Parts: sequence; structure tokens; C-alpha cells
Amino acid sequence: MRAELLFVGTELLLGEILNTNGQYLSQQLANLGIDLFYQSVVGDNWDRIAGSLQQALDRSDVVITSGGLGPTEDDITREVTAQVTGRPLALNEGLKAGLEAFYARRKRAMPQNNLRQAMVPEGATILHNDRGTAPGLIVPAPGGKAVVLLPGPPNELVPLFENQVIPFLTGRLGGQPLTLVTRTLRIVEFGESGLMERLAPLVDAQEEVTIAPYAKLAEVHLRLATKAATVEEGLAKIAPVEAQVRDLVGNYVYGLDATNLEMAVGELLRERGLQLALAESCTGGLIAQRVTSVAGSSDYFGFGFTTYANEAKERLLGVDPAVLAEFGAVSEQVAAQMAEGALRVSGADLALSVTGIAGPGGGTETKPVGQVCFGLAATGKNGLPAGTWTRTVQFWGSRDDIRNRAAHQALAWIRRYCLGRIAE
Amino acid sequence: MRAELLFVGTELLLGEILNTNGQYLSQQLANLGIDLFYQSVVGDNWDRIAGSLQQALDRSDVVITSGGLGPTEDDITREVTAQVTGRPLALNEGLKAGLEAFYARRKRAMPQNNLRQAMVPEGATILHNDRGTAPGLIVPAPGGKAVVLLPGPPNELVPLFENQVIPFLTGRLGGQPLTLVTRTLRIVEFGESGLMERLAPLVDAQEEVTIAPYAKLAEVHLRLATKAATVEEGLAKIAPVEAQVRDLVGNYVYGLDATNLEMAVGELLRERGLQLALAESCTGGLIAQRVTSVAGSSDYFGFGFTTYANEAKERLLGVDPAVLAEFGAVSEQVAAQMAEGALRVSGADLALSVTGIAGPGGGTETKPVGQVCFGLAATGKNGLPAGTWTRTVQFWGSRDDIRNRAAHQALAWIRRYCLGRIAE
Repeated sequence: MRAELLFVGTELLLGEILNTNGQYLSQQLANLGIDLFYQSVVGDNWDRIAGSLQQALDRSDVVITSGGLGPTEDDITREVTAQVTGRPLALNEGLKAGLEAFYARRKRAMPQNNLRQAMVPEGATILHNDRGTAPGLIVPAPGGKAVVLLPGPPNELVPLFENQVIPFLTGRLGGQPLTLVTRTLRIVEFGESGLMERLAPLVDAQEEVTIAPYAKLAEVHLRLATKAATVEEGLAKIAPVEAQVRDLVGNYVYGLDATNLEMAVGELLRERGLQLALAESCTGGLIAQRVTSVAGSSDYFGFGFTTYANEAKERLLGVDPAVLAEFGAVSEQVAAQMAEGALRVSGADLALSVTGIAGPGGGTETKPVGQVCFGLAATGKNGLPAGTWTRTVQFWGSRDDIRNRAAHQALAWIRRYCLGRIAE
Repeated sequence: MRAELLFVGTELLLGEILNTNGQYLSQQLANLGIDLFYQSVVGDNWDRIAGSLQQALDRSDVVITSGGLGPTEDDITREVTAQVTGRPLALNEGLKAGLEAFYARRKRAMPQNNLRQAMVPEGATILHNDRGTAPGLIVPAPGGKAVVLLPGPPNELVPLFENQVIPFLTGRLGGQPLTLVTRTLRIVEFGESGLMERLAPLVDAQEEVTIAPYAKLAEVHLRLATKAATVEEGLAKIAPVEAQVRDLVGNYVYGLDATNLEMAVGELLRERGLQLALAESCTGGLIAQRVTSVAGSSDYFGFGFTTYANEAKERLLGVDPAVLAEFGAVSEQVAAQMAEGALRVSGADLALSVTGIAGPGGGTETKPVGQVCFGLAATGKNGLPAGTWTRTVQFWGSRDDIRNRAAHQALAWIRRYCLGRIAE
């Protein structure tokens, strides 16, 4: 089967947004073993959308579009597709009722324009969109072909594609195509080049299973990939390679595939029966935000302190003003007292503190921008040690980078404590 | 002048790399005032590159390609272009000497394949590449048209484009090239379709200045754009349209261009001389994280409480256990006490609280997922009112969406208080 991608939106032609949907959909089609030979971008112009869509239908079996399904007048992908496929639009009462309910819940009148989003080409399949008002559509085209219309916002496109378009595509594929099977090991506290040096013998020996590193902010994703008739068969080919990787760097592998660091840390806290408290200065709530981004995190997290001012460190956490005066807010002494204070006030089992200089201003010769002190205090529960530990790390990059790297390091350090490896 | 972009590389079709060159070149052409109606991506396949290039030349004056100039056998953009433009390749001795010198400096023998990078179509202009072995080329095409070949790696493409392609393009434009001048009004608490209904008279009347909305999570960016000889001239054309927009929806315009909501709110707090405190439950530190993402935010923010557990609401903020028991944690009563507690404990002038159900679990019939209560308590300083206000909003989407929309709403509400419009 041959697919083609058509992205609609003048904002893409003006470079106002980066076409991340292009990469996402390309990867997904590759994973499904569907050929993709062309991608195109056109603006919100009837003739150019129509011409590009017709050309795509001439040379491919399925055309997937994104963008141009919104309620405003420049959004015309639905209307152009109806014309090109020869399938007139009709109002769908179910979608209309859904739109009305959507606005009723928000106690707002529905703008008349929005009714366009309830128009459906004859014979089209509706793809329900939980995150926006524009449904996706699968519109049959002459010659047994099809046009799949998806909304442009990635947070709407991705779930629509994964839940509703993939089943449609695999249904059309039939038979047994080869599938790309991957397993991504997420690795923390180990740089990309050092990692690949350690793994060099495996990389040199790779045959059926490829090993590729992807550097992310403060972590590396190591992708093991192979093609196989089934996912099970692919995973069976990957398993021995994964075992070899884990022999070399297993301590640093915190999770698999979509498991992020806050999920992995949350799972460890839950397993160990530990309550976590956080005391943040330079990260300003970023670590708490990440911990609580995981559903169910109230099981192991209840108290967070964003003590951005010195006065907050003193009043909320009991940091000694004399220690603040002597060593400064960015010091291991203050980090230790912040963690101990958070532990005491919250009654948690484990408290993590961060205080540092996120920049761009505020750096000095002895405490440059990027210097961040961490503290970890624990009561010692379920076989894990009691005590207070501190450390200082020099980060680099923009204010955002420094805050993000510091938050990642903090989570990695909590992970180490839970694994009984805080002293390493 | 009309330009077109053609990206060559199977890695793009497999989704292995994100096409950042697409956004970069689109922005550059828009800045030069050159029309761009189409972008395409094709793999490393002779016929498909040739067909796409011929089509692009048929409909545009200048075709800019990136990728496919490397030394390996799948890199064929140069050869295909020579064929399509009818300009045979010949070895360029200068480029050959340069390649030999490049390898001599690295004390390596030059692979024979690399000589292909010294082949130049007849009459082409060479664009020297300081950062790689593939030169760029400007190849004349029939009808006074041209194909500009650029290497794929962005660190090579960008300097080649800026130093050598821009002068070529502006030379072709002749005279005074027109520049795209834009001004983006960032709008909050007003949905895209309602906004465009309100602005319909302006949109219908638009001539030289175009008005286009871009829906973002919980806000809308309204872009006013025009073409002009200079930025000053463009802004002068935009100014009266902006004034008309502000007449209609000015209260909702919080910032311009790159100013995000946390920056705008921070600026208001600073101007009003207000200290902000935050008490977050379901947003779990997200608002504090956004407030502190702005450099210099310690001027107006010192205390944040992430009171995820009821016990934290009671112990840190003094929320009454009886009120928690009677109304539940997600209630305006608790939101009010959280805000009042944060104000009292921190000594700030203004405190904002959030408590809600981010989901995916935890919803009930009367308190569904997405229900979020806000509280705002203020001492009444610098002419602004004293008091406690609460409200409840029903959000939708994923856990992340709900938290992000709630954080955005909270910031918008702080903005309203600072503007003396909390009661509206």
C-alpha cells in the first residue's frame, strides 16, 4: 500500500510552525510497513489544495491530510476534499448535537461558523476527536482509494491517528506485512558519547537488530529495532540484544518506551512505600509539576514547597538565617536544611531540595550561572538508609535548560535513593 | 517572484529526522517577500526527484532543494538536476583541489566517491561550504529560472543560505524587495471562533493587512501581516488595523509577539508593586513553574505551596478540616481558604489557589474530571480591591490539557485582578 501526506496551512508556508506532524506520521507509516514516497505542504488556497490532493490520489492509495478543519473561513480542507472526491457535504446531526453540547457545557453560544465542523462528505467515516471540535474524516475516493482528514494540532492528531486511523490502515493492509518492532531503553546519568563507547562492541556486531542512540535533554534514548512478521517475533529478536545492553549499562536504564523519568520514579516510590516531599528554589515548582503530571501521584506525593525567597526558606522550612547569611542561598548547607525542613514539616519519608542559579543574571565568579545544589533527606524506611546527602552540579545552557536539567537530575537522584544507591 | 522548496531524503520520509530546514527556509522566504506556495519531500529516487523538480520548475521561478548532495550512492540531487535542466556535469578542478586538501588536512585518503562532490552542471554558480564537503550550486534552468541546491545538514545549509543565496535572490528581485512585516496580538479568555465573529467586519474589509487567527492551548494568536519596503513602513500600515482590533477586543490582548502570559502577568505584578503567592493542588506546581520561568520573577514571587494532599492544605494553609469534609477538596470554599491561607502565611499582597480534578480518574457525577475551582485573595494594595473571589471552570481534554488550561486560566485571572477587572 502506498500512502501520501498532504499538509495544509499557510502558517506552514510562512514558517510560523514546525511541521512535527510530518515526522510523526512518517514514522507511524514506516512502522506499519506502508510505503511513503511523497509529502507536500500547501497553503489555505482552494485550487492549490485541490490540485495537490488530486495529484496525490493519482499516485497513492491513501492520502492523509492534516490541517484546515477549523471553524474559520480559511479552513477549507473538508470542502475541497468533498469536491475532489465527488462526495457532497451534508450536516451530520450527531456531530451538530455534539458541538452544541460542547458549547452548552461551557455556557457559551455556538458561533454559527462552527456548524461547518458538523458537515460530512457522503459516505465518510467520522473519527471522533476528544480534544477539539473538528472531527477527523475518512472519505472514500474513486478507485477504492481514500482521503484521511486529520486536524492540525498534534495533541488532537496523535490520538486520532493512533486510535482510529491505524486500525483503518491495518485493516486495508490485510495479509502479513513486516512490522518495524522497536524497544527504547531510556537512560539517565550517562552521556551519549560515553554510552556509545561502552556499547561499541554491540554496535559493531549489530546485524538484524539495529542500535541507535537519540540524545534528549539530560537523557539518552537507545532504540533497538528490527523488522518481523509479528511484534512477538520482533521482540524475541530484540531480547538477547537488550540483555547484552543491560549487562553493560543496566544501572542507568530507568524505563522503557513511553515511560518517562517521573513515571519510573513514581513507580519506585509506590513500590518502596515512600512519601516524597519537595523543596524547590531555582526550579520553582518544576519538579513538583513533573511528579504530579503522573496520574495517581497523590499516592506518594502530598507536600511541595516553592521557596523562591530566602524568607520562604526560613519561614516554611526553618532554614537558619545565619546559615543563609554565611553560605548563601545556593549552598549545600542551605540545600541540606531545606530538605530536612521539608521532611520535618511534611512528615514524609524522603525530601528532595534544589537551590541554584538559573540565570541569565545572578551569577558570580565562585557561583556561576548553572550552579545548582541538591539536598536529599530521608528517615530511613523499608531498609533504605536514614540521613542527609548533598551535592553540587554545574549545568549549562539557557535558563530553561538549566531548570530542566536540574529537575531531571533531581528525579534521577530520587531514583538512586530508592534503588539503595544514593552513596554511589 | 515565486519560489518552491523540494526536500530530498529517504530519512525524511521515514520520519528519522524532523524537517527543520522547511521552517527555516519558509521563514527566510517570507522575510524576503518571496511567494512560497508549495513544499515537497521526496526520497532518494531518480524518477521521483526528477518528476518533482520538473513540476516545481513548471510552476515557480526558483526551486530550492536541500539534501542529496553527499558522497554516497543514494545522493543524486546534483545528477538529477543536471539532467532536468539539460546542463551536463563536468569536473571542477578548484573543487577537486579543495576536497583533496580537506582530506590531506585530516591525513586520510579521499574516497573516490567524493569526487562526485566536485562535479558541477554547466554554467552553475558554486556556493562555497565551509562546514562540509558538499558545495551548494545555483543551476540555471530554461525560461530564466533557477535551481538552488543546498546540503541537508542545517549547520551547513543556514550559513550557505544567509551568505550566498539571499544575495542571489535579492539580486533577482531587483530594486527594493518587499519584506513581510507581522505583529501578533496574544489573546486570552476569548475562543477562536467567537473572536473571529467579533472581528468579522475587519476581516471582511482586510486589504493590505491580513488578519489571521492561530488557536493555541487556551489562547489565540492573532497575526496582522503586510508586505512593505521596510519594517517601519509595514508597522505604519498595521497600526490602524491593530487599533481597530483593540477597539473590539482590546481587553483580551495581553501581549505582543514573543511575550507569553507569564511574562505579561509578571510585568503587571511588578508595575503594581504586588507580591504574589500560589497555592496549587491539581496543577501541582505548574503555575509556580511558569511564573518562575521568567528571569527576575523573584521580584514579585517568593512563596509557592503545592498542597497536593488534604493534610498539606490543612497544615500549610490552615484549611478547615470541617470545610474539607463538608464540601470536598474540589470546592470554591476550599479554594477560598487555600488562597486566604497562602496570603496570610506568605505575607504577600495577592494569592491564587487552584484545586480540581485533573483526571483521568477521580471524577464523579457532580464533580466530573476537568472541574477546577480557583480562589483569589488580596489585601487590597495600590488602589486594587481587597477580598476573596472564587470561581469554578469545567475544562476538557487529557490530564495534561486540563492542568495546562487551568494554569493558563489562573494566570489570566491574576492579570484581570491587576487590571482592576476581577469582578467582571
